[in-house]
Amino acid sequence: MKNTVIIGSGPAGLTAAIYLARSGLDPIVICGEKPGGQLINTDMIENYPGFESINGAELMMKILTQAEKLGAKIVYETVSNVSKSYDEGSKIELQSGEVLESKTVLISTGASHRRLEIPGEKEFTNKGVSWCATCDGPMYRGKMVAVVGGGNTAVMEALFLSNLVEKVYLIHRRDALRAEKIMQERLFACRNVECIWNSQISEIIGDTKLQAIKLNTGNTLDVSALFIAIGVVPSSDFVKNLVKLDAEGYVIANETQTSIPGIFAAGDIVSGSIKQAIFAAGQGCQASQMIEQYLGVR
Amino acid sequence: MKNTVIIGSGPAGLTAAIYLARSGLDPIVICGEKPGGQLINTDMIENYPGFESINGAELMMKILTQAEKLGAKIVYETVSNVSKSYDEGSKIELQSGEVLESKTVLISTGASHRRLEIPGEKEFTNKGVSWCATCDGPMYRGKMVAVVGGGNTAVMEALFLSNLVEKVYLIHRRDALRAEKIMQERLFACRNVECIWNSQISEIIGDTKLQAIKLNTGNTLDVSALFIAIGVVPSSDFVKNLVKLDAEGYVIANETQTSIPGIFAAGDIVSGSIKQAIFAAGQGCQASQMIEQYLGVR
Repeated sequence: MKNTVIIGSGPAGLTAAIYLARSGLDPIVICGEKPGGQLINTDMIENYPGFESINGAELMMKILTQAEKLGAKIVYETVSNVSKSYDEGSKIELQSGEVLESKTVLISTGASHRRLEIPGEKEFTNKGVSWCATCDGPMYRGKMVAVVGGGNTAVMEALFLSNLVEKVYLIHRRDALRAEKIMQERLFACRNVECIWNSQISEIIGDTKLQAIKLNTGNTLDVSALFIAIGVVPSSDFVKNLVKLDAEGYVIANETQTSIPGIFAAGDIVSGSIKQAIFAAGQGCQASQMIEQYLGVR
Repeated sequence: MKNTVIIGSGPAGLTAAIYLARSGLDPIVICGEKPGGQLINTDMIENYPGFESINGAELMMKILTQAEKLGAKIVYETVSNVSKSYDEGSKIELQSGEVLESKTVLISTGASHRRLEIPGEKEFTNKGVSWCATCDGPMYRGKMVAVVGGGNTAVMEALFLSNLVEKVYLIHRRDALRAEKIMQERLFACRNVECIWNSQISEIIGDTKLQAIKLNTGNTLDVSALFIAIGVVPSSDFVKNLVKLDAEGYVIANETQTSIPGIFAAGDIVSGSIKQAIFAAGQGCQASQMIEQYLGVR
C-alpha cells in the first residue's frame, strides 16, 4: 500500500510530489505518456514568478527533475480507473493492466483546450494561435487580434484583450452569444471590439507567423493573433464514477478535498480553478499539506 | 487615481504585480524598506518548483526584477494606514506623509515569526535555527532536533519532523501544551518525541553550525537543529480598522476578497493560509484576477 499516488504531471501534480517527497512519503507520479502537462506545448512563459521568460517544456523538465531528485517516482503510464472501498485505500488501475493501491490519491490531470481542427491551427500554434489571452495577450499590444467562441470564456478573453490591443474581432458561428448577459453588455460597450456573426474560420494564414484568418463567408481578416476559446475538456473520465464532478466534468473540491475522503484534486482539473501554472503549483502545495494531514503526519 | 496598489513585496505581492503589469494596469508595489518579504532571510529553498536549490534573496530579486521589467513600479516606502470611503477608491498613507489613491488595494504584507531573543539565535539562523519544519526539516534526516513552543504549530512541527529525524525534543516553558487535545494525543503517541517541560532555552551553542542548546534548568541537549514555533505575528496593524481580522490579527479573505469591496489580500497575511512561497505566489495570481474582475477588465 503506497502513501500517495499523484495522477498527472503538470505544475499541480509535480509541486505536490516535491512537497510529499521532502516529507518522506515516497509519492508515485503517474505522468501519462509525456510528463509536464499542457505547459510543454507552450513556447514562452513570462508569468511564472522566478523566470523572466522560459520555454514551457524547459520549465516543466526543471520541475520534474527537481521532484525526481527529491525521491518522487515517475511512472510513464496512463490511469484507466480509480476506485475506493469504504475506509480502505484506493485502487489505481493503469492501462498496462497493473493495479496500484494507495492510502491517498491526488487527481491533477488538468484539462485540454478544444481545437478548431482547421488548416494552419497546428502550424501557427505559439506563432499567433493561442489558447490563453492572460498568457499571450501582452505580446500583441497595439495590434489587431481575433477571438473565436461565444461563451463566457471567449467574451472574457475579448474583454481582457481590448485593454491591450488596437482592436479585437470576436468571431462566432451563431448570431448571438452564449455568454452571460452582464458579460455581453460589457463586451458591447467596448469600442474596440467588433463581433463577426454567423462565421466560422476556415483557414489560418501566414508565413513564419500568423497574418490573417479566412472565414467561411469569404472574408479575410488581417490579424496578428487568434485566441481560440471554444471550450476546455477536463481530463476526468477515469474518476467520473468516483468523485463529484460539476456539469462540465471538472472535479468539485474544497481546498483540494474532493467528495471522497482520501481523494484530493489540484490544478486545472478543479471546478472553478484559475488556469495558470503558478496557481496550479500553489494548489499542489496545498494538496500536499491536506494529504499529510489525512495521513496523520502533520 | 491608480488602478491598484500592492502593499508588500513577498511572493504574493510580486506575483500579483507580474500579472497586473502584464494586463496593462500599471500596479504600484509599496515594498517596505527591503523588498522580497520573509524569504530574503532564508538561506536555501528547495521546494519552490523550478529551482532545485536557490538562495531566498536571490529568488526574490529574480521575481522583483521580473515584475519591474514588466512595468510594475516599486516604491521603497512603508504604509501607515489604509482607509476607504463608500464606493470611492482607497487612500493609502505612506510613512513619508505621501498619500496615494487607488481603485483597488492588495494587502500582502505577510507575517513574521516571533524570536526567542537569546544568544546564538541570530548567529545560527539558517545554520540550524529554523522557523519552518516543512522547509528545512528534510535537511536533518536521521538527526536529533528540537522544537520550542507549546501551541498547535509547535506540535505540528514536531509531528512532521518525527517522520524524518531520529528524535525530536519538544521544549516548552510550562508543564502542559496549549495545542488541541487531538494534536497532543498524536504527539504523545510518537515514540521518537520527548517533551521537555518547564524549560526555557537560554543559549544556542555551535561553531559553524548549531550543535547544542542550553536550558535554564542547567541541562544541555545535543541537537543539529532548533525549530522555533513560539508564534507568528501578522503585519496587519495598518488595516486593523479597515478589514475584518481573525483573533490572531490575520486578514479574513475568501478567494482573496476581504470584508471590504476593492480590498484584497493574499499570502501569509490571510487567515488560515499555508505559509509557503509557492502557495503565496498562487494566491497572488488569484488576487490579480479578482482585481481585474473588480476593475471590469476581465
